[in-house]
Amino acid sequence: MQGTGVPLVTPFDDDGEIAAEALRSVVSWLESSDGIDFLVPCGSTSEAPLMDTDERARVIEVVADETDLPVLAGTGHAGYRTTVRQTERAAEAGADAALVVTPHYYGHDAAALSSYYRDVADASPVPVYLYSVPKFTGVALQPETVAGLATHDNVVGIKDSSGDVARVGRHARATRDEEFDVLNGSGSVYAHALDAGATGGVLALANVVPDLAGEIRQRHRDGDEDGARRLNAELVDLNVALTGRYGVPGVKAAVAHRDVPAGSPRRPLSPVGPEVRRELAALVDAALS
Amino acid sequence: MQGTGVPLVTPFDDDGEIAAEALRSVVSWLESSDGIDFLVPCGSTSEAPLMDTDERARVIEVVADETDLPVLAGTGHAGYRTTVRQTERAAEAGADAALVVTPHYYGHDAAALSSYYRDVADASPVPVYLYSVPKFTGVALQPETVAGLATHDNVVGIKDSSGDVARVGRHARATRDEEFDVLNGSGSVYAHALDAGATGGVLALANVVPDLAGEIRQRHRDGDEDGARRLNAELVDLNVALTGRYGVPGVKAAVAHRDVPAGSPRRPLSPVGPEVRRELAALVDAALS
Amino acid sequence: MQGTGVPLVTPFDDDGEIAAEALRSVVSWLESSDGIDFLVPCGSTSEAPLMDTDERARVIEVVADETDLPVLAGTGHAGYRTTVRQTERAAEAGADAALVVTPHYYGHDAAALSSYYRDVADASPVPVYLYSVPKFTGVALQPETVAGLATHDNVVGIKDSSGDVARVGRHARATRDEEFDVLNGSGSVYAHALDAGATGGVLALANVVPDLAGEIRQRHRDGDEDGARRLNAELVDLNVALTGRYGVPGVKAAVAHRDVPAGSPRRPLSPVGPEVRRELAALVDAALS
Amino acid sequence: MQGTGVPLVTPFDDDGEIAAEALRSVVSWLESSDGIDFLVPCGSTSEAPLMDTDERARVIEVVADETDLPVLAGTGHAGYRTTVRQTERAAEAGADAALVVTPHYYGHDAAALSSYYRDVADASPVPVYLYSVPKFTGVALQPETVAGLATHDNVVGIKDSSGDVARVGRHARATRDEEFDVLNGSGSVYAHALDAGATGGVLALANVVPDLAGEIRQRHRDGDEDGARRLNAELVDLNVALTGRYGVPGVKAAVAHRDVPAGSPRRPLSPVGPEVRRELAALVDAALS
Repeated sequence: MQGTGVPLVTPFDDDGEIAAEALRSVVSWLESSDGIDFLVPCGSTSEAPLMDTDERARVIEVVADETDLPVLAGTGHAGYRTTVRQTERAAEAGADAALVVTPHYYGHDAAALSSYYRDVADASPVPVYLYSVPKFTGVALQPETVAGLATHDNVVGIKDSSGDVARVGRHARATRDEEFDVLNGSGSVYAHALDAGATGGVLALANVVPDLAGEIRQRHRDGDEDGARRLNAELVDLNVALTGRYGVPGVKAAVAHRDVPAGSPRRPLSPVGPEVRRELAALVDAALS
Repeated sequence: MQGTGVPLVTPFDDDGEIAAEALRSVVSWLESSDGIDFLVPCGSTSEAPLMDTDERARVIEVVADETDLPVLAGTGHAGYRTTVRQTERAAEAGADAALVVTPHYYGHDAAALSSYYRDVADASPVPVYLYSVPKFTGVALQPETVAGLATHDNVVGIKDSSGDVARVGRHARATRDEEFDVLNGSGSVYAHALDAGATGGVLALANVVPDLAGEIRQRHRDGDEDGARRLNAELVDLNVALTGRYGVPGVKAAVAHRDVPAGSPRRPLSPVGPEVRRELAALVDAALS
Repeated sequence: MQGTGVPLVTPFDDDGEIAAEALRSVVSWLESSDGIDFLVPCGSTSEAPLMDTDERARVIEVVADETDLPVLAGTGHAGYRTTVRQTERAAEAGADAALVVTPHYYGHDAAALSSYYRDVADASPVPVYLYSVPKFTGVALQPETVAGLATHDNVVGIKDSSGDVARVGRHARATRDEEFDVLNGSGSVYAHALDAGATGGVLALANVVPDLAGEIRQRHRDGDEDGARRLNAELVDLNVALTGRYGVPGVKAAVAHRDVPAGSPRRPLSPVGPEVRRELAALVDAALS
Repeated sequence: MQGTGVPLVTPFDDDGEIAAEALRSVVSWLESSDGIDFLVPCGSTSEAPLMDTDERARVIEVVADETDLPVLAGTGHAGYRTTVRQTERAAEAGADAALVVTPHYYGHDAAALSSYYRDVADASPVPVYLYSVPKFTGVALQPETVAGLATHDNVVGIKDSSGDVARVGRHARATRDEEFDVLNGSGSVYAHALDAGATGGVLALANVVPDLAGEIRQRHRDGDEDGARRLNAELVDLNVALTGRYGVPGVKAAVAHRDVPAGSPRRPLSPVGPEVRRELAALVDAALS
C-alpha cells in the first residue's frame, strides 16, 4: 500500500445495522475521487471496535466487492486467536492486506508485542501492516520494535497515527533495507511525514476531502514538496476538528455535508448536534474553496 | 451479589482452546472453599478480552452448569450492540446478572457513559452491574455518574477496581437510598472497602486463596473489623505480586501452585517463567501458613 | 510528628505580600482548636512553590514564633542545594523537622530519589520527612524505596498524599521495625489510613474544620474506629470540593468562611468566585452542623 | 530571536558551584561555531530548576558578559512574583529577552495561563517568550492560547518543545499577523518545524554539535529544504540519546567529548556511567564524520 488510503466510515441505518448500499456509495464516491490509492475498511474511523467479527467481515466483503482499489482491512482484536480468524475472513472477503492494531487491554511490553505480531504474521494468509494509534490504545510502537518486525517476510508496513513526525521518520530509516511501507495516520502532518520518508498515509480526513488529501501526496510525488505542505496547512483546522475535537461522529457529519450517505455513529458514540454540524460544514466549505 | 466473588481464571489447553473440564475443576474447587459467595466468569482476570463472543458464552454456560452459586457474568464489549447480544447470551447460558465494563476505545465522557449504561440496562434480560477498572481502560466511573445510574431499576450495582477507598465509600453513600451493591475489585483494600460501605468484593486474589479472601468478609460481617484488616494486610504482598507485577499469567501460576488446573494464558499474554513461579509459590505458601 | 497536622494556608495581603499578622491569627486559631497536634508551614496548601526562599523562611519563623506546637516545615525544592539551604534556614527559624517533597522536574527514578534523600538527610540539622504527592509532582514514592530510606537515622517519616490506603498501609508495614511516622495526606481517607497503620495525618481539610479533623484521630486513638470513619465520611464531600475541585483558592475561601483571615491566593492562582464561595460555605456549614 | 539558539549547559565544579570560567569557555566555543544565532542560559538543559535565583542571575550575567550574541534568558518559576523578580534581574544582567516556562505545580488551565503571561509581560522590562515543554511540566500551550497572547505588545514569541510539528505549524499560522517568533525546541524535528513555519529553534543538541545544528537552519534559509531534512535525519539518533534516553547528564557527557568543559550535573541528577559515555561519544563521532 502506497499513496493515500481512506479509513472508511461505516454507514449504519436507523436500526444501527450496516447500510451496505450506503457503504457502496461511500466507496464509489471515494473511488471516483482523484488521488485515492487504496481503501481501509474496519479501521478506527470505521467504528470497527463497535462491530462484531461477522459485521467486520461483511463490511470488508462489501468494500472489496465494490472497489477496484487495493483493500487494507483492519483485523486487529485484543486477542491473538480472534485477530487471526478475523484476518483469515478478511482475506476470504477479498482484502489484499491486514492492518493489525496493537493489542492493549492488558498493557503488553515491546517483547510481547513483537512476539504477537510475529505469530499473527506467520498465520496470516495476507501481508500484515502494524498499526500504532496511541490516542486510542495508550500503546506506541517504537522504531526499534518496528525494525525488528520488518525483517519478517509477511510484515510489510506500519500505519503510525501518533502524529509524531520524528517517529515516522525513524520508522522509515530503521526499515530502509526492507520493502516496508510507512503510512502516516495523522492528517495534520501528512506532507511532513512524506518529507520524513513515509510512503503514504491513511487519513480520516480523506473521507471528507479525498481530492485534497490525495493531492498532498501527488504534489509531493511530483517534487512540489512546498506545495504539498501549503495545501496540508490549509486542511489542518478541519483535521483538528475532525480528529481532535469531534472524532468519528464529526467525520460522519462532514461526509454527510458532502452529500455522501455516512449514516449515524453507533452507540456509545452519538451524532454531533446542529451547531457542530454547522461548524464542520463551514470548515469543509473553507477547505474546498 | 453480596459477599466475596471470584473473577474466574479461564483454563486453556495446549492448543489454546477452552479447557472445559479444567474450568469445571476450578469452579468446583472454589465452590468447596468456605466463604465464596458468587462466581464471575468473563471478567478481566478471565482473559475475556482475548475470547470471542461464542467462547465467552461457552465459558459462562460451563460455569453456570457446574455451580450452585450465583453467576455474575462479564458481558461488556466496546460497542453497545455486541454488549447487548453478549448479555442476552449470558442470560440464556444461566447468568444471574451481567457485569458490564465501561466502553473505552474512543474515550467517552460521563454523559455518554450514562446514556450507554441506561440503554444496556433497558435491553438486558438480567440485572446489570457497572464495572470501572481504570488500570485497563483509562476510564473511571465517578460517584455522581453512579448515583444517577443507580436510580435505573435494572442497574443494581458496581464493581470498582480502582483501589480508591474514598471513591468506593462515595459510591456507597451516593447510592444508599437505592438497593445497590458496591463491590470492591482490589484485593489490597478489601477490608477497608468493606469499612467504607462496600457490600462485597470481586478479587483476582480469591482465585488463589479463596478461603482467606472469603474470611476477610466473614470476619467483617461478624463484627471483627480489626481482624478483617489484619488478615487482609497479610495478603497484600501476594496481591500486589498477582495484580500489580505479574497480572493474569501470575494468577494462573499461583492457582496452579494450589494444584488446580489453571492452564496457560492466551497470546498475547505469555506464561511467567520459573523464577516468578517460585516467587509466587513462596508468597502463596506464606499466606497460607 | 504524630496525630493531626495542618498544612497551613499562607495569608497574603492585597499587594501579595505575606500577611504576618494574619498568619499569626491562623496559627493561634488552629492552636486553640482541640485536636491539632502539629503545624506544617510551607506545604503544598501553603503555596510554598509560589514563594521564594526568603519568604518561606519568614513564614516558618512567624509560625514557630507564634506556636507551642511542633513545627514540620516544608523545605523541598527541585534541586539538592536549594533544599539543603532551605532546610538549614527552617531549622534556624525554629522548625522541629523538615518535610521534603520529591524533586520532579527531570523525572528521577527510585535510585536517584533514594540517593537524593540520603544526601539531604545527611546534611539536614533536623529530622527529615519524605513527602510524596503524585497529584502535583507526577512522582509516587513506593514502599520499597521508603523502607530503604527508613533505615537512615535522620529520615523519620513520610507524608503520603496519594490517597491510596493500600500504599499507606504498605509504608507502615515496610517500616514497622523502625521508629518511623507514616502521615496520611488525604482528608478523604484519614480514618482508613489510621486503620491501615498511619500514625497521623497532614490534611488541607484541617485548615477549615480543625476540631473535626482532629476528632477523627482522637476517636481512632480511643478505640472508636467506627466512629472515626463515620465522622470522616461526613467530611468527604467537603474535602473533595477543597482538594479535588477548587484547590488552594477553595481552602482559603473556606477558611475565610470560618472568620479567619486567610487572604487571597497568589498568582497564577486566583480567588474562587462568589458562587463557589457559597457552595463551599454551605459544605462547611453542613460539616459543622 | 530567530535562527538557532543554544540552551546552554551550566558547568558546575567539584563542589557543585557554578564554574564561571568553564561557562565562559562553553559560550566562547559556541560563539566561534558557525551558525549559532543566540544563547539561552537558564533553560531546562541548563539545570535552571536546580539553581536558586541568585545563581540564575549570576549565570545570565556571565553569559551576557562573555557573548556578543543576543541572550534569551530563562526566568520562569512556579510563582508570578519570583518570575517577575528573576526577569528583572535577568534584564539587569544583560538579557535581551526572557523565556518564561509555564507554571505547573498546581495544574493551571488555559485561562489562568493566559492571565499569568499577560501579567508577567506587563511587568517585564524585556520582551517575553512563552515556553511550553510538556515533557517536564505536563502542560502544553495550545495554539488558541498562544494566538491570544501574541497580541500583547511584550509577548514576542514561543519556544515549543513538544516535538509536535503540527502544533508548531499551528502556532505559526495562528500568529502570522503579529511579529512573533516560533522557536522549535526539539532537535529531532528541527527541519520539519522550519518547514511548518518556525522561525528558529532552541536545541539541546546545539550544545554538542553547534555547527551541524546551525547548518540545518542555514540550508533551510538558503532554500535547500531537502538538504536541511537530510542533515537533521542524520542527527536524530544522537538527539534521541541526548534528550530521550540520558537527559542533561547525557548532554554534559557529549559536550565533554567535544573537549569543552561541561562539568558535572547537579544533584539529584548524576553523571552518566562510562558505558553511556562511550555510546554518546560514538554517536557524536558518527554525526561529525
